[in-house]
Amino acid sequence: MARNTHVPADLAAPPITSILAKFASTHPSRGWSEAVEHEAHRTFYNWLGCAIGAAHHEAADAALAAVQMLEPAAQASVLGRSEKVDMGSAALLNGITSHTFDFDDTHLKTIIHPAGPVASAVLALAEHQGIAGRVVIDALVLGIDVACRIGNTMYPDHYDRGWHITGSTGMLGAAAGCARVLGLNEQQTAMALGIAASQPVGLREQFGTMTKPFHPGGAARAGLMSALMASKGFTSSPRAIEAPRGFVQVASDKRAWHEVTDELGERFEISFNTYKPFACGIVIHPSIDACVQLKDKGITPDQVERIELRVHSLVLELTGKKTPRDGLQGKFSVYHGCAVGLIYGKAGEDEFADAVVTDPRVVALRDKVQATVDDSIHEASVRVTAVLKDGRSIEVRVDHAIGSLENPLSDSQLEGKFISLVEPVLGAAKAKDITASCWSLATLADVRALTALCRP
Amino acid sequence: MARNTHVPADLAAPPITSILAKFASTHPSRGWSEAVEHEAHRTFYNWLGCAIGAAHHEAADAALAAVQMLEPAAQASVLGRSEKVDMGSAALLNGITSHTFDFDDTHLKTIIHPAGPVASAVLALAEHQGIAGRVVIDALVLGIDVACRIGNTMYPDHYDRGWHITGSTGMLGAAAGCARVLGLNEQQTAMALGIAASQPVGLREQFGTMTKPFHPGGAARAGLMSALMASKGFTSSPRAIEAPRGFVQVASDKRAWHEVTDELGERFEISFNTYKPFACGIVIHPSIDACVQLKDKGITPDQVERIELRVHSLVLELTGKKTPRDGLQGKFSVYHGCAVGLIYGKAGEDEFADAVVTDPRVVALRDKVQATVDDSIHEASVRVTAVLKDGRSIEVRVDHAIGSLENPLSDSQLEGKFISLVEPVLGAAKAKDITASCWSLATLADVRALTALCRP
Repeated sequence: MARNTHVPADLAAPPITSILAKFASTHPSRGWSEAVEHEAHRTFYNWLGCAIGAAHHEAADAALAAVQMLEPAAQASVLGRSEKVDMGSAALLNGITSHTFDFDDTHLKTIIHPAGPVASAVLALAEHQGIAGRVVIDALVLGIDVACRIGNTMYPDHYDRGWHITGSTGMLGAAAGCARVLGLNEQQTAMALGIAASQPVGLREQFGTMTKPFHPGGAARAGLMSALMASKGFTSSPRAIEAPRGFVQVASDKRAWHEVTDELGERFEISFNTYKPFACGIVIHPSIDACVQLKDKGITPDQVERIELRVHSLVLELTGKKTPRDGLQGKFSVYHGCAVGLIYGKAGEDEFADAVVTDPRVVALRDKVQATVDDSIHEASVRVTAVLKDGRSIEVRVDHAIGSLENPLSDSQLEGKFISLVEPVLGAAKAKDITASCWSLATLADVRALTALCRP
Repeated sequence: MARNTHVPADLAAPPITSILAKFASTHPSRGWSEAVEHEAHRTFYNWLGCAIGAAHHEAADAALAAVQMLEPAAQASVLGRSEKVDMGSAALLNGITSHTFDFDDTHLKTIIHPAGPVASAVLALAEHQGIAGRVVIDALVLGIDVACRIGNTMYPDHYDRGWHITGSTGMLGAAAGCARVLGLNEQQTAMALGIAASQPVGLREQFGTMTKPFHPGGAARAGLMSALMASKGFTSSPRAIEAPRGFVQVASDKRAWHEVTDELGERFEISFNTYKPFACGIVIHPSIDACVQLKDKGITPDQVERIELRVHSLVLELTGKKTPRDGLQGKFSVYHGCAVGLIYGKAGEDEFADAVVTDPRVVALRDKVQATVDDSIHEASVRVTAVLKDGRSIEVRVDHAIGSLENPLSDSQLEGKFISLVEPVLGAAKAKDITASCWSLATLADVRALTALCRP
């Protein structure tokens, strides 16, 4: 039909589905550098902390209650809780909790949160099947590579169009990872990717509701089921990703196929993964970082006359809430972020509690924060000037905030974040044991030794 | 971010999600004409026959084997089989089988096959909960109205873009229907629609593979789970369907909102549902009908020099396979359709068996069929000329094929179709008992009396 008003179909797309299927099924185990191997452990560990931390959030309670209406078999853990459910539902629930605090990993090139869909699916399957940690790490690296390379192919058009790219590429990463765990061959893996390609999950309109974290969970479940179906002979188009009526062309006008094939098996997208030090949208991070630095310089809130920010317009567009009224709104307020940064020296989930957002001391300092737009400043940078009551002005310039690719969290900072998330749920001893287990995940003979620790 | 290159966002969309939620949750039971009520029974009956008929297809075997890896609870029937599975998986499996033969109902305005997602979800839930037939019919009428009205809003742009519209609107119909069965209020129903809006299932690239019938199954499961989650307090955007980054605007440049609101609660889209006499894509039906008419005129294959078709270009675009190699490919070959129409006088599932597609007699006649594109002929019409060896030319003109809205199957023709599908699976006695139960479904106190008949 010639009624299509969009960009013309690309009839010459390379066989992306087959290329990725071959890669995911045949790339050697641990076929990458020590740096990639270590980043995979960091990605897994950060994801697990986020999932356990939100285990008792009301979104988790609601989703679990719905799942329980299906009377699921006890195959895999709901991380941080005592309940076990079937592995499809575990993938769903752990995907939801890992993204509930908006505190999970970010592939900055695409704004994909890749561990949510991939690790949630892979671990649920691996737990049920008693798989070794080595296989889980392999599946994580390969699955994330698949999701993020498809993301690179479509970003930013696909995201601008309104897709929540985490859930609309994540089903492919989850399918690839689970196919790897199941040991599917190239052909079967292509079918798994194909079945998954029909199931993108996620609209940006859902931001601010429980359905946002549902997206990585839904994608995890869809990818896992696609791999199970492919393992039983269910068929799909072997060109489901790249054909004119395949996923990429249907969901994006940008189709940079070379993003899939360039240095495939040599460059790994997990290398570009980052972990948030602060439990809020990434554009506020430089401002919080600067205010934490002010505190570290000995500045106290009562010394402050005003705090002046110079930021890119995007910062105020996304997080310009002057008077947030609860924790969720606080996550979209650069003013609140600065206030807690200077008062507490941190901005974890606790600093976005409703009570903190309405705390008079926080409100008073927040009202002293003034922001000026300056588009000559990069989106990921900030200039902050603290004007003190004694007349002094102290300037802090942040070009790359802590947690960025250029200035990543150290392993021990990541541990600090993990402990703060997990200790309230499982206690200090388990938080420590899980930490040790995660850093040596690749050598674990059976991941059930780890998942057992993740239940109270 | 202003990088969007598509049609501008429509910031003035009416509150479609709320409007449909109010409609689905508050429209009175049986609040429609006798004709609509009867059409609902025809829709359900036709859907059930298709689902039972394909119960042992290899697509059903493969999907069921994957589902069984989850060790599902025995909550609801896999129609036509002895196995029971959890209600979510039953929705999936019955949705798959109902579309496997491509023999199910068609809402011709949008090419949506609405019963697949809606009835599969509603019956699985109703069976598990022991619900009355009255509620099932109500949910079917309302759920189909929701799916098809959203389809009307986006068709044809959404379909042209490459979405398999059955699965990419069906999740909304399934959510609405299941919300109705659960007795959700207006608010909760809006949340169910919102959660479902993030989960469209289906790419046209999958046509000819098992993932095509997966689409209504996946949509059925997604809609059912969305309703269950909403019933437990899971939240979504209350504008998830219509917002600038909501489903319709993300997935279509056509946004004819009035299609949702025009005569809502007065005109019911199920009135425009049709049932196929032939087990293949609807665009081939006029050609098959014409060839059956040639047979009825006494023309035999050995008399034929060639058969000339004049058809709309869409017919060849969708079903132009010259040399199909198996039954599935045969369903996308107008040439095969014509051959079996003239040889057998029918084109049920049997006439698309692999052995028939490769039968030398069928192949020989198929090779004598020639198609010419003529876009002055309507998509749903055909001109067929049989040129005989003795020099005669016999022309048949079909404006409205049997099974179209203008020339629908009678109830007794529908029974003939049902029996031919169900008898080989469950035997003649059960086929008859199920038929009686379906025609009086609205008076059934508990649908489990019906689903019990649907197992061997």
